[in-house]
Amino acid sequence: MYLYQQKNKNLNSLGRLFRVHLFGESHGECVGLTIDGCPAGLSLSVEDFLPDLERRKGGTKGTTPRKEDDIPRIITGLFEGRTTGAPITILFDNMNTRSADYEKQREIPRPGHADLVAQQKFGGFSDYRGSGHFSGRLTVCLVAAGVIAKKLVGETGIHADIIEIGGETDPDQGLQKALDARDSIGGIIECRVSGLPLGLGEPFFDPVESLLSHAVFAIPAIRGIEFGTGFAAARMFGSEHNDSIQDQSGKTKTNHAGGIVGGITNGNELVFRVAVKPTSSTPAQQESLNRETGNVEAFSIKGRHDLCIALRVPVILEAVTAIVLADLFLLEQQIKRVL
Amino acid sequence: MYLYQQKNKNLNSLGRLFRVHLFGESHGECVGLTIDGCPAGLSLSVEDFLPDLERRKGGTKGTTPRKEDDIPRIITGLFEGRTTGAPITILFDNMNTRSADYEKQREIPRPGHADLVAQQKFGGFSDYRGSGHFSGRLTVCLVAAGVIAKKLVGETGIHADIIEIGGETDPDQGLQKALDARDSIGGIIECRVSGLPLGLGEPFFDPVESLLSHAVFAIPAIRGIEFGTGFAAARMFGSEHNDSIQDQSGKTKTNHAGGIVGGITNGNELVFRVAVKPTSSTPAQQESLNRETGNVEAFSIKGRHDLCIALRVPVILEAVTAIVLADLFLLEQQIKRVL
Amino acid sequence: MYLYQQKNKNLNSLGRLFRVHLFGESHGECVGLTIDGCPAGLSLSVEDFLPDLERRKGGTKGTTPRKEDDIPRIITGLFEGRTTGAPITILFDNMNTRSADYEKQREIPRPGHADLVAQQKFGGFSDYRGSGHFSGRLTVCLVAAGVIAKKLVGETGIHADIIEIGGETDPDQGLQKALDARDSIGGIIECRVSGLPLGLGEPFFDPVESLLSHAVFAIPAIRGIEFGTGFAAARMFGSEHNDSIQDQSGKTKTNHAGGIVGGITNGNELVFRVAVKPTSSTPAQQESLNRETGNVEAFSIKGRHDLCIALRVPVILEAVTAIVLADLFLLEQQIKRVL
Amino acid sequence: MYLYQQKNKNLNSLGRLFRVHLFGESHGECVGLTIDGCPAGLSLSVEDFLPDLERRKGGTKGTTPRKEDDIPRIITGLFEGRTTGAPITILFDNMNTRSADYEKQREIPRPGHADLVAQQKFGGFSDYRGSGHFSGRLTVCLVAAGVIAKKLVGETGIHADIIEIGGETDPDQGLQKALDARDSIGGIIECRVSGLPLGLGEPFFDPVESLLSHAVFAIPAIRGIEFGTGFAAARMFGSEHNDSIQDQSGKTKTNHAGGIVGGITNGNELVFRVAVKPTSSTPAQQESLNRETGNVEAFSIKGRHDLCIALRVPVILEAVTAIVLADLFLLEQQIKRVL
Repeated sequence: MYLYQQKNKNLNSLGRLFRVHLFGESHGECVGLTIDGCPAGLSLSVEDFLPDLERRKGGTKGTTPRKEDDIPRIITGLFEGRTTGAPITILFDNMNTRSADYEKQREIPRPGHADLVAQQKFGGFSDYRGSGHFSGRLTVCLVAAGVIAKKLVGETGIHADIIEIGGETDPDQGLQKALDARDSIGGIIECRVSGLPLGLGEPFFDPVESLLSHAVFAIPAIRGIEFGTGFAAARMFGSEHNDSIQDQSGKTKTNHAGGIVGGITNGNELVFRVAVKPTSSTPAQQESLNRETGNVEAFSIKGRHDLCIALRVPVILEAVTAIVLADLFLLEQQIKRVL
Repeated sequence: MYLYQQKNKNLNSLGRLFRVHLFGESHGECVGLTIDGCPAGLSLSVEDFLPDLERRKGGTKGTTPRKEDDIPRIITGLFEGRTTGAPITILFDNMNTRSADYEKQREIPRPGHADLVAQQKFGGFSDYRGSGHFSGRLTVCLVAAGVIAKKLVGETGIHADIIEIGGETDPDQGLQKALDARDSIGGIIECRVSGLPLGLGEPFFDPVESLLSHAVFAIPAIRGIEFGTGFAAARMFGSEHNDSIQDQSGKTKTNHAGGIVGGITNGNELVFRVAVKPTSSTPAQQESLNRETGNVEAFSIKGRHDLCIALRVPVILEAVTAIVLADLFLLEQQIKRVL
Repeated sequence: MYLYQQKNKNLNSLGRLFRVHLFGESHGECVGLTIDGCPAGLSLSVEDFLPDLERRKGGTKGTTPRKEDDIPRIITGLFEGRTTGAPITILFDNMNTRSADYEKQREIPRPGHADLVAQQKFGGFSDYRGSGHFSGRLTVCLVAAGVIAKKLVGETGIHADIIEIGGETDPDQGLQKALDARDSIGGIIECRVSGLPLGLGEPFFDPVESLLSHAVFAIPAIRGIEFGTGFAAARMFGSEHNDSIQDQSGKTKTNHAGGIVGGITNGNELVFRVAVKPTSSTPAQQESLNRETGNVEAFSIKGRHDLCIALRVPVILEAVTAIVLADLFLLEQQIKRVL
Repeated sequence: MYLYQQKNKNLNSLGRLFRVHLFGESHGECVGLTIDGCPAGLSLSVEDFLPDLERRKGGTKGTTPRKEDDIPRIITGLFEGRTTGAPITILFDNMNTRSADYEKQREIPRPGHADLVAQQKFGGFSDYRGSGHFSGRLTVCLVAAGVIAKKLVGETGIHADIIEIGGETDPDQGLQKALDARDSIGGIIECRVSGLPLGLGEPFFDPVESLLSHAVFAIPAIRGIEFGTGFAAARMFGSEHNDSIQDQSGKTKTNHAGGIVGGITNGNELVFRVAVKPTSSTPAQQESLNRETGNVEAFSIKGRHDLCIALRVPVILEAVTAIVLADLFLLEQQIKRVL
């Protein structure tokens, strides 16, 4: 019996002082998270989580009909309604699983999914049901961590919005294209953060862009990220792109830099965008290897899936942004008082 | 006398098993790096570094006339021409510095540069000359680390190329626009890596995109990164974007995913692109705050600068890519034999 | 409402590739752990944990009458009886709690306990019941992690034994002294590991002694650690202490070094001892501050406690030793085959 | 040509926010260190280092006649006499090397030294001259880091003293035993730190004892560490050992705990002792394997060595203590003002 040691340095942790650990599988008992390093004294209740969890849930047009109650069970780190400084562990039970949908499909690794790489990386021992630990289901944990992180960063306003679905700036229009085509579709989300202090981020290897992009690409289906004018900057002259500094606070006339210079926040609004690919589980017919027959065969995905995963990304994007900022705030000792 | 402790968690380290530490300032005695975790027995000489260092150097059209000899001094970790397993420290002396250029300009924080944020973040104690520790000069250390990393990843072919300057696919044409406008200009670089094994990268927080983007945004002037079809994926249907799997090795018919699914390399070519902003030090006239007068004033940048920093990025992009891959190879024990 | 951010960088993680995270409180819902980085394919069942958990349990002479069932609930990372490579989370429910015992005593911080420091460090928000997150109850999680780690280090034989209680080499005799005196008592435990390969440990900051002692002092009540001849070495001549090397495998004639030279295992038996202080919760009368009255007052500890905590330490010491070795084995790629 | 990758995860870094990286070899060009995370604005000059470096130097009775000038060269991170917040790199040139002494002895791995383990761990590629990277020479770097750390921890008084040489409380008497026997000898050093705040250290894996012992065992020749009453605690009753708390500041009547309860500083004096083995390079005749002949042979060590390495340990012990405390102070934001 061989262990596949060489293929499983699972490192499910993010952050240095505000640290988030994820665990769980889509069709196992639960998914969950531990937050280590959260300050003591923060008031916290199940209710605090519900609005953002609700935003993430499926059920409306274009998102999966699988619905979980998504009630967080806070099993450690809380005492008399406040954080204690000890690790906070939160579980989300999996109740609405239909593993049989996946069993049938086991022999055909789904294009765009981790099926084949997970099977090979972990020597055939990974939990294949519903993508197992690779599942988008784990983003419920990111959202929960984000709720706590948002409390820490206080008055900072973090807002992510859909700015494009399927090339249309009107999300409904873009989604309709997908519904008409009976296919899945991608989109672009923009995140803006106001009220950030000047000085977050570290040269040389921990600029804000590095920290944010590291966290952002942990969200399944993200294919690109750009800050400020981003890719458009590559087509600009320096005199157009440079943001004229107006005063000692760092305020600039324009904000092509998206609030970051030299990897450090400059006191202006933080602005970045991410590209979300179309849901890999499209209802359209596709081709893939059938490992049993060894042939490439046409097939259709079964199971309950989002037509446009981008629709659920905004609250997750806000969450990872808040997680990164909470860690930076703790590093920079910006957290002094929270109501 | 106050210390500005709250504003200087400098974390100049990258990697887990192959670790790179940077140090130094543009106009100090030297810049340098320490590599910790490099396997013993790797043959290494000053000559090994020269080709990539030469590629990075300024001096041709559109790059800075400041030229350093850039001869690496390997002061530790090498014995009888081979690495010993102990940390490798390499210095690059700064010989060609003209600090006076910067002294004059100290009171006007340059737009697009870290001048103001560095000054405020470090309480006025940062070395402002030539951007100090924030300087692009430190990328010479990244290139040096990349030379060693490339040796470790062996037959893996890492190649980065300019695919666009100032919106033109012919770099010369794009550069000519800048020369004509007496302004700086941006560009886009694409990096491709062939020969990668399936299985690099880790769920949930260390997918390959996270690790690469983290490292890539340490390169000054990068404003965006996209993998595979990247931002274009946001406008595609799932049936278009999905790459049909052809065989058990993971080979796909198309490569829209850019060689990564579920955050894990899938055995196909790794492909990503980065956007490089126009050099902040444009020769064109700009406006910025004069901290002495308190007014926003027009001024022109002095000093020796690249018109198009993107021209020097390819070898640096290859270097950080190699650093990330070397770390993943060590984590995955892929390094078995190197000639 | 102030957060006590400055006083709670909780860092409940150990290890680099085999990582253990702890969470939970003595009188909360449960205590638990997540193991990240465990190879896929390891067979694992609840039954595997029972023998070591049984060794740790109280209930015999000199240990606490509080008994928990201590049945591990493996809620993630296991599929069809084998590890998947994803994080393994295990919970131990707290069922046998009598918090009222502690409520009465809240105003008198117990000498030798973390009561006062926890209360002050976490701004009064820590869970004081049964020492909360500081409780020895969490060592059940260490033992569980140790069971998995022992499986990974395979044929390596890790054995810890009591060598002294209350100054007596016969543990029963030492314990009788405590029973007679109606007082708690300390002891010394020795741990021996055979079958270790030469070469584990890293200069300069991760010698085996550093890694082991770091983990060992996480066990409550440990006051000292010594390797090989330890403190006795301070009274020896070099010619007495040096172990003559006998052959290329590193075998030495004597083993005063306890199996480690230069911080690296040398292929001989690893030997170290730890000193365990007497249980702080002695039944004898003591004095401490009464925070309500502001006076130092005599009082007696209520609650269920071990008379000699050292009796329960051997299996915990084995566990942390196994955790450290599993991490080193993964770093050194010594794990190739496990039945 | 094989790389010995499996045997060289060199991790020469200590600390989380105040991070020390070491590099260099005894008989190479230099030894050195980089400090990352030191606050900006700290005044620093070569003169600051000289007193502690002088304390560490050999040259008096019982220490090595090898003398280095040990003048630190601060090559980065300093500007106009103050730290900048960027990494501080300091070099110590090796000038007084007599490698020929070691060449002769290459085939006989010295008992008590890392010769054999280094050779095997690094596949024969390690620098064997004067123990290479394993050399006590690198402790000059620890002392240098300690000088900076001591500045950060400010009024905290860190003092280490020899309390025993060769079993004698009068160091001269103990040393005389060694001189008479023409043999090397061990000793015990005690370190005391006054003025520490209550609350340093973290449950569960980073108690102060863990952090200190981790750092302390990086000092070559340390074989044991004990806190407060240490091993003697194992022979005490709880009622004897417990320190009665006197007031809300945490002051205790006795200090058997050595200033730490529950892994957290309790506001009393921190007290710990370390055992130092006799110098492995004894002038007495010894036996070891001759790798050329394959026989165990008698031989005598050549080269310049300390008869009692313990004599040089106090300032090094203070240094690692200061390094650990500086990191904890930064984590706990205790550094606010330094003159």
